Amino acid sequence: MSRSRQIAVVAPASPVKKEIAERVEALAASIPGGPRVRFHPQCFSTEGHFAGSDAERSAALLEVANDPAVDAVWFGRGGYGSGRLDETLFGALNDAARRKTYLGYSDLGFVLARLLATGVGKPVHGPMPSDIARPGGEDAVRRALSFLADGDLAGIEPTARAGRNVVAFNLTILAHLIGASWAPDLSGCVIMLEETCEHHYRIDRCFFTLFQNPGVRKAAGIMLGRCSDIPENDPIFGKSEEEIARYWCDRYGVPYLGRADIGHDAGNKIVPFGGVQVADAAFAS
Amino acid sequence: MSRSRQIAVVAPASPVKKEIAERVEALAASIPGGPRVRFHPQCFSTEGHFAGSDAERSAALLEVANDPAVDAVWFGRGGYGSGRLDETLFGALNDAARRKTYLGYSDLGFVLARLLATGVGKPVHGPMPSDIARPGGEDAVRRALSFLADGDLAGIEPTARAGRNVVAFNLTILAHLIGASWAPDLSGCVIMLEETCEHHYRIDRCFFTLFQNPGVRKAAGIMLGRCSDIPENDPIFGKSEEEIARYWCDRYGVPYLGRADIGHDAGNKIVPFGGVQVADAAFAS
Repeated sequence: MSRSRQIAVVAPASPVKKEIAERVEALAASIPGGPRVRFHPQCFSTEGHFAGSDAERSAALLEVANDPAVDAVWFGRGGYGSGRLDETLFGALNDAARRKTYLGYSDLGFVLARLLATGVGKPVHGPMPSDIARPGGEDAVRRALSFLADGDLAGIEPTARAGRNVVAFNLTILAHLIGASWAPDLSGCVIMLEETCEHHYRIDRCFFTLFQNPGVRKAAGIMLGRCSDIPENDPIFGKSEEEIARYWCDRYGVPYLGRADIGHDAGNKIVPFGGVQVADAAFAS
Repeated sequence: MSRSRQIAVVAPASPVKKEIAERVEALAASIPGGPRVRFHPQCFSTEGHFAGSDAERSAALLEVANDPAVDAVWFGRGGYGSGRLDETLFGALNDAARRKTYLGYSDLGFVLARLLATGVGKPVHGPMPSDIARPGGEDAVRRALSFLADGDLAGIEPTARAGRNVVAFNLTILAHLIGASWAPDLSGCVIMLEETCEHHYRIDRCFFTLFQNPGVRKAAGIMLGRCSDIPENDPIFGKSEEEIARYWCDRYGVPYLGRADIGHDAGNKIVPFGGVQVADAAFAS
């Protein structure tokens, strides 16, 4: 590669802490031939829950997406707020935006879904800069940087390596957008779903919502990522998250394909939407 | 009225406690000429989180709905599980089912919405037997009994009295069903929304979801019921629930029509879907 890849970080949801940004920049700089990571000032803006106003967050995303000098847009942090972006920005994305990779997860599912639905760029589910604060988080960030910098496929989720038409989402986020008039058609996809901090009954309820969508009922299969920090419920729900996933798959005749290696943790592997064909896929999965 | 009205209680979600049923039966019996309230044995069944298996809950609802001797179906308690009912039951409802009133709220929004969408019976949002356990809950249950027994309209929500085409739902439940292929078309409706035990960011997210639905964008207006027991959030969200409702209404040009007298409390007024025309409506509202 003749020049360092340029990665622009924006925060369509919650703000990024300065020290997180500095740690990620330092990590990127320590990688020989590594990418240049630039945190857009919007990342550090705050307005209530959000990294700046809806207009400010929308403008920052549009700016870096449309910038031909930027190779990849990396979402700085989840939290909440991506769904509130100005919808018109998706119609204003240019040819440079269409060539880019967009990496994030959790709340950013709102943006990844919208990009997928409109066929813009390469949406990818995977680690974000904020993950560096997790135990083992440097590995997660290095995985993301290597993928963004030179297309390193070592950190790709096993099923996504096998050339299957995969997508990955946080379950709650997908449930909140699957009924949208603009939602992507997930028929034929392997849908990977992860969750954190939600009761079992809420996990069950989100599966209900997903399966009311005709495209989901025609999915190639469902895979369950990690569901972490599930609060205790009174009464106990009586089914594990995997039993819940199997129940809904069985109910609507969609294959349950087992566990996906994704989650709200440092082990969260990379899922390029649509999958990739990796030569060693047979060994990796 | 020549005979006592027959009210059948079933529990499509969580089970009803025996002592709750006894208190409600005693209250009904104390009303001169009051209704006969019969708790279906399914109400007391348990399977994990639910009042019996999905099949058992579905069968009980179908049984009482199709019974010509039953005048009204009263849902015993919310909780969770109505969305898991066997969908085929809605196609199996007979003429007797089409004449009935169905009363409940919270999780029962799944059933009310389905009845509304299929044009079966008279769905009504209002108190349930389990509300008798709340402070002041006897008033709530008496309000429901009077409405079910002899169509007493004193407990009708003010805007619902004025002949407007109203519907009422728990916000989270409506957000989880609005994208369903079978969801009711809410264009032209005044949509009343109440919530309990959800963070402000979750309230905001549910409004996002609702407004991705074309029918909701053509609603006659949104009214916000009470939002109770909102957990504290870190960081604080920065907008009250009413500011959130106004934001989303403004964003999509739907009139925000103020507060509705509904909520997860003993003051929860009755909202017959479609509204009623009450002679004193001008005074009541």
